[in-house]
Amino acid sequence: MSKNRLIYLPLGGAGEIGMNCYLYGYGPEGKERFIMVDLGLTFPDMDTTPGVDLILPDIEWIEKRRDRLDAIFISHAHEDHVGAVGHLWGHLKAPIYARAFTAHMARLKFEEHGHDELMIKTASAWPEMIKAGPFNVGFAPISHSIPESSALVIDTPAGRIVHTGDFKLDNNPGVGEAWNPELWADIAANGVKALVCDSTNVFSPLPGRSESTLPEPITELVAGAKGLVAATTFASNIARVKTLAVAGKNAGRSVVLLGRAMRRMITAGVETGILQDFPATVSPEDALSVPRDSLMLIVTGSQGERRAASAQLSRGKYLGLTLKEGDMFLFSSKTIPGNERSVGRIVNAFSEMGVDVVDDSSGLYHVSGHANRPDLAEMHRIIAPDFLIPMHGEHRHLREHVKLAAETGLSGVLAPNGTMVDISGKTPKVVDHVDTGRTYLDGAVLIGAMDGVVRDRIRMALNGHVLVTLIVEDDQPLGEAWCEIMGLPETGRSRAALVEVLEEDVTQFLMRAGRKTLADDDKLGDEIRRIVRNTANDEIGKKPEVTVVVSRLQG
Amino acid sequence: MSKNRLIYLPLGGAGEIGMNCYLYGYGPEGKERFIMVDLGLTFPDMDTTPGVDLILPDIEWIEKRRDRLDAIFISHAHEDHVGAVGHLWGHLKAPIYARAFTAHMARLKFEEHGHDELMIKTASAWPEMIKAGPFNVGFAPISHSIPESSALVIDTPAGRIVHTGDFKLDNNPGVGEAWNPELWADIAANGVKALVCDSTNVFSPLPGRSESTLPEPITELVAGAKGLVAATTFASNIARVKTLAVAGKNAGRSVVLLGRAMRRMITAGVETGILQDFPATVSPEDALSVPRDSLMLIVTGSQGERRAASAQLSRGKYLGLTLKEGDMFLFSSKTIPGNERSVGRIVNAFSEMGVDVVDDSSGLYHVSGHANRPDLAEMHRIIAPDFLIPMHGEHRHLREHVKLAAETGLSGVLAPNGTMVDISGKTPKVVDHVDTGRTYLDGAVLIGAMDGVVRDRIRMALNGHVLVTLIVEDDQPLGEAWCEIMGLPETGRSRAALVEVLEEDVTQFLMRAGRKTLADDDKLGDEIRRIVRNTANDEIGKKPEVTVVVSRLQG
Repeated sequence: MSKNRLIYLPLGGAGEIGMNCYLYGYGPEGKERFIMVDLGLTFPDMDTTPGVDLILPDIEWIEKRRDRLDAIFISHAHEDHVGAVGHLWGHLKAPIYARAFTAHMARLKFEEHGHDELMIKTASAWPEMIKAGPFNVGFAPISHSIPESSALVIDTPAGRIVHTGDFKLDNNPGVGEAWNPELWADIAANGVKALVCDSTNVFSPLPGRSESTLPEPITELVAGAKGLVAATTFASNIARVKTLAVAGKNAGRSVVLLGRAMRRMITAGVETGILQDFPATVSPEDALSVPRDSLMLIVTGSQGERRAASAQLSRGKYLGLTLKEGDMFLFSSKTIPGNERSVGRIVNAFSEMGVDVVDDSSGLYHVSGHANRPDLAEMHRIIAPDFLIPMHGEHRHLREHVKLAAETGLSGVLAPNGTMVDISGKTPKVVDHVDTGRTYLDGAVLIGAMDGVVRDRIRMALNGHVLVTLIVEDDQPLGEAWCEIMGLPETGRSRAALVEVLEEDVTQFLMRAGRKTLADDDKLGDEIRRIVRNTANDEIGKKPEVTVVVSRLQG
Repeated sequence: MSKNRLIYLPLGGAGEIGMNCYLYGYGPEGKERFIMVDLGLTFPDMDTTPGVDLILPDIEWIEKRRDRLDAIFISHAHEDHVGAVGHLWGHLKAPIYARAFTAHMARLKFEEHGHDELMIKTASAWPEMIKAGPFNVGFAPISHSIPESSALVIDTPAGRIVHTGDFKLDNNPGVGEAWNPELWADIAANGVKALVCDSTNVFSPLPGRSESTLPEPITELVAGAKGLVAATTFASNIARVKTLAVAGKNAGRSVVLLGRAMRRMITAGVETGILQDFPATVSPEDALSVPRDSLMLIVTGSQGERRAASAQLSRGKYLGLTLKEGDMFLFSSKTIPGNERSVGRIVNAFSEMGVDVVDDSSGLYHVSGHANRPDLAEMHRIIAPDFLIPMHGEHRHLREHVKLAAETGLSGVLAPNGTMVDISGKTPKVVDHVDTGRTYLDGAVLIGAMDGVVRDRIRMALNGHVLVTLIVEDDQPLGEAWCEIMGLPETGRSRAALVEVLEEDVTQFLMRAGRKTLADDDKLGDEIRRIVRNTANDEIGKKPEVTVVVSRLQG
């Protein structure tokens, strides 16, 4: 009989901010029982994933062992933690546990995918615990930018693990539970083996600020505005949405929620009882008959998403509502790195309309939902674990978090996605590297990141596409080759039409080509591709992608 | 005889940071004589300009009037001011004036394009002035992040214009001329009509810092490093490159310049006499025999450019040199908005190697080359123009700059690209809007931004591409349709091969199609496109781009 071991294996989230998915296993090697923490997604970009709708973790490793997966625990309802449950649960089929608000959001996803909603179980908060195989798991409330965020207290035969999920130290987060250091001292009182800890803000040197610092300046800003006021934030930041709505109400404005996610979140907040005293809202339709200077729009699209309400307002109108000279648009949000260009486009479009854009540069209208560097150090101190495992960060964040821990003598293990760490003993040991990666939701299909589909799209975007068709009858070309181009200039150096130059060179080749070449589709295709790429390079200085279609007739 | 007027017309740079190109005209309406200030470029991105090599201003308006263009003045040698002279000068043919260093860089571009280098004239600094039609233009030294930067003092029959170019108020810029408030007070003494002014840093609330604050912390950082040190900055920031090199030398390290732009810039600095006492460098080849802890690499690629030295080092090696655990990489630079993802990729790759990355977050290792908000206010005060024309900024920067001026009672005119402003009188008047835009250098070809070429590439990248070929003989389909896909998943909902499902649906349609449809290429193409898009949407949830090729045979 082999010895039991406790292992940690991140499948997503340790190497990026997004797409969280972590496994814990306990048992003899190769026979461990597993639990999963979080099953989130991340968002595509034009640089690396054009045309992709969503990016999900590659869960193949655990799918193959799903008979040993006892449960999935979701820490909170942000898309990078719960977003993939609809798309991927069918591959896993283990019960999902989450607190009421998170479970509600997960059930909406199950509904869309036709999964059995009874497989999502509503968990109570700590000190209640859920048994899942050899694990006992509790949802310990912790402050973050969405209600009912929880760190998971995972008790195992080898000791206690604290998996923070996303968190900050906020004594007064508005909506949701406050940071409670006594609770955490209590949880840690009998010793914690591993602190698996959010690393997002490890590079932010100052202590984090409380959500409660925002209502005053936001209220003041809205009260001082002359025209229509629109404000954006993440819809899931229910506390912020409420702050914005109350500021609008106090300024005597009618509050309008714009964007599907915004309405859905607030409805969920009300239905689950989390959100109380949310000001009355008016529909976009009714808003049309309210004077502009009595309107407060709260809209989706803080990251410049093309189809969100903010972007649509910046391009003209949204459900009949428009912005104009003298109006104000507030970003009660931070631009996530990589979204600067899309947010910039919106800001410039508003600038052209004469709309005053207010962003977070003053530091008055937004606070982060993640623990900053000194807050992380405080968490280390309170939990005092045997060791730290940084998660929820790009590689640089994880590495810096290990360094931060080292400053106070706490040892940390750098375990990016796919690193299997044996954490049975006092010192963590990397025991295996598992293939991980990304799965793309592309339209309605799940494809692997390495399938080449997206690579081909990027190539067409960079190089353009030439199609060559020709007919071969009895191994002789019938007529001339025909070229079509897409994404390429119509004329090049010779000033003749590019397609004509290409057709001429291909046709010349066909006239010279031997019967053996003409009889062999692969050879013919390769030769034509080479000719087209070289000719295009001479003409336009670019080597395009080339598709050759040979139709063979029997005479 | 119509009255003379003085006009201002930006063709680039007023609506973006980059691609600067401004026209001034004087004379009767429609018969003005022109000068151009700057002819720069900007850089493409995957979001909006995939596959494009460089973006240039659309100069068609002045090309059509080039017999009235008397001269082109280049304020300094940054690519966004001089970068398009090689590509576009052939369309203009007017003499180019620039100071020695800038002229040197422009001549290198002329050499590449085979233009007559004698058309680039080296100008002396203010108070010397150059006559160009009705204009007299002086190059007044002003501090910036590249040597010999100059504001242009443009004297016209209607008064004096000060066109700042890029500038900051730096009393001690290291290499290059210091900010000299007395000079500017002098230039402004007899009144300035218009201050046409850099707006880049209008959102930066604190006074700018001097280049001279950097040598001490950088020297300290390098002296304290244990392994190899590599540092990146813009190659054109010669003062910074020198600071880095001197820091390396003082720490007893051999200095290595990596990247073509880096070597080219430093060579130009030495050849033009601007750069003195630059430490001796060793070649990359010789560096291989120097101990790692005695090396200081100064490398290109501060913005994460894929092919630059920094990116190559992050992917493995560059000219045999590699980075590893314990080495340090310094970004003596700021990430330009939009480049966060590419810079992040490099930082994470270095993190995986165990290289310590130091960036500007401490505020110690980089200063901006542009005047901050209070510095702009100071410039307004010294020049005390009749009015301000903000330039060199996105729309939001220009708008904010007008607001800043208003705070001290200075009126400003918001004139984005294409806005023709009559500045003859005390108050500027917008008199026309001219079509402007962007020209793309795409491989070896110049294409218009609105040609649709890049739009098609983006569509292929987002939607994939389906090719349908069929043969029609005597208005009857010969055999079945043939489909090829590129950038699309191979199977969809039905689990059958996507191409087969598409071929079946197209073939079914062909069997049903009437002779009239089959005889009409356009109709046939439209119908097939519709079928392919619908079937693909059912199968994979995506509507691809479709190209249909019908080959017609006469039986």
